[in-house]
Amino acid sequence: MAAAGQKANLESLRKELASRGVDAFCIPRADEYLGEYIPAHNERLRWLTDFTGSAGMAVVTAKAAAIFTDGRYTVQVRRQVDGEQYQYRRLIEEPPLSWLTVELDAGSKVLIDPRMCTLDWYQQARDVLGGAGIELVLSIDNPIDRCWKSRPEAMVAEALLLEESFTGESSLSKRKRLGKHIADLGADAALIFAPDSVSWLLNVRGRDVPRLPVLLSCAVLEATGNLHLLVDKRRVPQGLHDHTGDGVSIVDEEDASRLLGAWAGKTVLADPATANAWTQLSLGEGGAKLIACEDPVLLPKACKNSVEVAGAQEAHRRDAVAEIRFLAWLDAEISEGRYHDEALVSDRLGAFRAEGALFHELSFDTISASASNGAMCHYNHQDNTPAPLLPDSLYLVDSGGQYSDGTTDITRTVAIGVPTQEMRELFTLVLKGHIALDRARFPSGTTGTHLDALARQFLWQTGRDYDHGTGHGVGAFLSVHEGPQRIGKAWNATPLAPGMIVSNEPGYYRDGDFGIRCENLCVVREADTSSQETPMLEFDALTLVPFDKRLIEVALLSRHEIDWIDTYHARVVQEIMGRLENPSDRDWLAAATTSLA
Amino acid sequence: MAAAGQKANLESLRKELASRGVDAFCIPRADEYLGEYIPAHNERLRWLTDFTGSAGMAVVTAKAAAIFTDGRYTVQVRRQVDGEQYQYRRLIEEPPLSWLTVELDAGSKVLIDPRMCTLDWYQQARDVLGGAGIELVLSIDNPIDRCWKSRPEAMVAEALLLEESFTGESSLSKRKRLGKHIADLGADAALIFAPDSVSWLLNVRGRDVPRLPVLLSCAVLEATGNLHLLVDKRRVPQGLHDHTGDGVSIVDEEDASRLLGAWAGKTVLADPATANAWTQLSLGEGGAKLIACEDPVLLPKACKNSVEVAGAQEAHRRDAVAEIRFLAWLDAEISEGRYHDEALVSDRLGAFRAEGALFHELSFDTISASASNGAMCHYNHQDNTPAPLLPDSLYLVDSGGQYSDGTTDITRTVAIGVPTQEMRELFTLVLKGHIALDRARFPSGTTGTHLDALARQFLWQTGRDYDHGTGHGVGAFLSVHEGPQRIGKAWNATPLAPGMIVSNEPGYYRDGDFGIRCENLCVVREADTSSQETPMLEFDALTLVPFDKRLIEVALLSRHEIDWIDTYHARVVQEIMGRLENPSDRDWLAAATTSLA
Repeated sequence: MAAAGQKANLESLRKELASRGVDAFCIPRADEYLGEYIPAHNERLRWLTDFTGSAGMAVVTAKAAAIFTDGRYTVQVRRQVDGEQYQYRRLIEEPPLSWLTVELDAGSKVLIDPRMCTLDWYQQARDVLGGAGIELVLSIDNPIDRCWKSRPEAMVAEALLLEESFTGESSLSKRKRLGKHIADLGADAALIFAPDSVSWLLNVRGRDVPRLPVLLSCAVLEATGNLHLLVDKRRVPQGLHDHTGDGVSIVDEEDASRLLGAWAGKTVLADPATANAWTQLSLGEGGAKLIACEDPVLLPKACKNSVEVAGAQEAHRRDAVAEIRFLAWLDAEISEGRYHDEALVSDRLGAFRAEGALFHELSFDTISASASNGAMCHYNHQDNTPAPLLPDSLYLVDSGGQYSDGTTDITRTVAIGVPTQEMRELFTLVLKGHIALDRARFPSGTTGTHLDALARQFLWQTGRDYDHGTGHGVGAFLSVHEGPQRIGKAWNATPLAPGMIVSNEPGYYRDGDFGIRCENLCVVREADTSSQETPMLEFDALTLVPFDKRLIEVALLSRHEIDWIDTYHARVVQEIMGRLENPSDRDWLAAATTSLA
Repeated sequence: MAAAGQKANLESLRKELASRGVDAFCIPRADEYLGEYIPAHNERLRWLTDFTGSAGMAVVTAKAAAIFTDGRYTVQVRRQVDGEQYQYRRLIEEPPLSWLTVELDAGSKVLIDPRMCTLDWYQQARDVLGGAGIELVLSIDNPIDRCWKSRPEAMVAEALLLEESFTGESSLSKRKRLGKHIADLGADAALIFAPDSVSWLLNVRGRDVPRLPVLLSCAVLEATGNLHLLVDKRRVPQGLHDHTGDGVSIVDEEDASRLLGAWAGKTVLADPATANAWTQLSLGEGGAKLIACEDPVLLPKACKNSVEVAGAQEAHRRDAVAEIRFLAWLDAEISEGRYHDEALVSDRLGAFRAEGALFHELSFDTISASASNGAMCHYNHQDNTPAPLLPDSLYLVDSGGQYSDGTTDITRTVAIGVPTQEMRELFTLVLKGHIALDRARFPSGTTGTHLDALARQFLWQTGRDYDHGTGHGVGAFLSVHEGPQRIGKAWNATPLAPGMIVSNEPGYYRDGDFGIRCENLCVVREADTSSQETPMLEFDALTLVPFDKRLIEVALLSRHEIDWIDTYHARVVQEIMGRLENPSDRDWLAAATTSLA
């Protein structure tokens, strides 16, 4: 089916391009909001190529087509995309623009939709293609939209108004505070492009994108604190103005050009690395003076206030109840010889979560990975036939929820039957890394890049590593992947600061065999050290679920590490036991948390 | 004396500036080579202000003058420079260019000597001052040189020819290899600006700068491997051409303009961040097309070949003999109640070093710091009256030598009498950091920034830190501070690679009380790990001198750490004991290295 459908879609696209007199078109995995999650009706790359990865780009000329993906999707892209129609290319090492300069003659025309790329990318495309004598043509009348029969309807649901008991600060206070910051930078206004930034500023949440509760919108925030919200009016709920306080005006998306063109002579901050090109080109054409500046919402949003931290803690306790009930159920099923498939156990976990108060939806598609599937970091059992759990293997489950008071994300690796000694040793090395990062104290100015090696050091000692970051930021009932902070090898310049929520998730993966990951979320807080010469920060775990003791090789642990595990498990018992209604769940938790010492 | 001399020098400089019709002049702590070490006759900033720090700048206008220094010199600058004549300013936070835009009116003229600054700095100065309507005037006829009576003569000694038994690769081979690299970058030639890069390329060493055995010179290397050496001809030794092989032509410094002007139509690589402005402006005026590019010698020079590594190991063994004889002597003196001063003990250490084969000179001014002086990281007893060692205190000695086969740099902290329990605990925390970094294994791509926290983690746990980097690169009979690799908090993008030599030197400093530092040099090599899934690198210690066991609190050490110390000390005994001629030195080493277990 796939190959025939892909061929037909490609043919109709080529026809459309020919009718417009252009020689090539770029189709990134993006919509106009440039976010990680994209609603189904905007999955243009998927419609064209069947590729379901979270990043990539197709480029189509009259004679050739190529799909560009990164190292995560080398295998997947070959399964999903027809090699007869598309060349497979590496996104980073063989970038689409270079490919175009080779494929096309000087004088050719390349079409892009400037809503689907950043201003930085657009400018780079203009320069690279221009250097080869190729003309860049812009159109927001996307050719895919002309070809896409039976395109899904857009979800258009009214936004939620999120109470101050969850947000801890009114929209008016946030807007005044950031407005002052904009004035301090010498600007009149700032383009607030990211939907999660706008949602945070207005204390609203959306219901149109699966997994990501943002109001699809962007905004211009003035130094006065007044905000112009660019949004599909059908998404605006009753009572928004009462909720946000004074100074919020609504502009329907159809009038976007009018809003963006109304800043002549004003200085407007915008982030060329994250905001779409069209928005900034429109501001510029309207006469605004654009100053490149990181989204001013990023840091205030990342540093949760005390209400948000308390909310996250409470959300994680409810989430722990669901995860513990699930783990207890799973152990019981296995002990009865019932080796369910990945989909069934994933659904069971989802059902436990859905019983929790203030639950809205999952925070991302559950990674429910049996045995060798666990070695694929971005495995999704829905892409293929779900595999059954296997005796004497490892099961990796990475999942989370969106609650009104917080966003969760937890990975546990579970022994199914009797794991091998090697599995136990490798699990223990991963857990030692998790513990070293969790126990770290560090001065202000320390970034996630400085701490990343703490989580890898034990694997490194044995000649092993994992090929993903160690920690990502997490929102407050917002994106489960939130910047600007990050723990990883790539340089991240944002210092970790009190209130930031990050994941701690070292792992180990053996192709075709098994995967291991130990993931908690934690919040950065001030530490109480024996000397206060240099004030220190530390992590406080939000996630409260036992690590599988059947996978711990105690001989590999130091005294500090044994203490850490016992203390953590005692805390899980203290905070969660009383919330478990079912005696068998309580028995399971008691057994799962007995001391290692 | 200082204040009167400073006033007189400032007056004569102001007269000179007035005669040239300029309103201000910038005097950086630099000469035309922009290196860390500057020969006495080029210490222009010191002549003017008496400031002896390694970085800083004075700016003089008709009415005002200011001296700009960084955090290392906040105390020192106030001691050395007369506050009546100079305002004290912070180099980073209150930069000289901003100060000038406030002090001067539009239409003013600021003089700089473009040999004393990088092209990057010159361009920034032009832009910042230009923005305030201030004109930048360039002159290589430096006003200081017109005012400086009794200026020391330049040292002009013939360079040394360094045999291939030390360098491991002929100049011709190096030049061909780098020439190919230049061609691969699409260029015709590269400006090799740094004297240590030129010295490495030609396998020569100079004798004109204390502590830094470079031939003061710069060069243009062609893609063919041919090299044009710009140098004071009096420094060129007999037999240079036989030594370097074909393709080296000498251009006297007086003919610099002729050489730099001879590249019309050619593409020349140059590093605007490190090469002086005048050199590149001259290339540009001559019609060369300049491409910004890091000095292509940096990485090949940093990654020592097997001959250089073997040389460094051997140099460190001889250096260890000197340091161990010194430590044995010092213990004996103290036990006899002879509390010498910092200068006497420093000289004694220097004398032991000078007895070693292939020794040339110290690699930097010895930091010989008694008690509270140890808390000043850049202490030099020659700046003041040397202090005596004190009973029941810590003595910190940071020193090194230049040998034909390598450059050394070692810091040991020594118990004088009976240290306090707190001193022992803090020493042990520093040593734990040293051990953690030394034991680290890491994959290719890892930079010093990734590993820095390993050395700080134990101090961080207790609310303490140190305010300097953890490790710097070291040359092969070249600069004791060599890039591009570095271990520290500031982002360094150069991955650690086999053959690189770096220091491992965590510390702890308590103002007015004591200083602690544990420093070894080590070389990066490939590790032999239990799994070879991901090839790992590791450090191999070059320095072979015991750490003072009287300062180790064994209760704070893990089993791994105790093993590390015992194994290291056993290696010291194995490699050094047989080289100690004096029975009392052998007895000292035996006692200093008994097992902790």
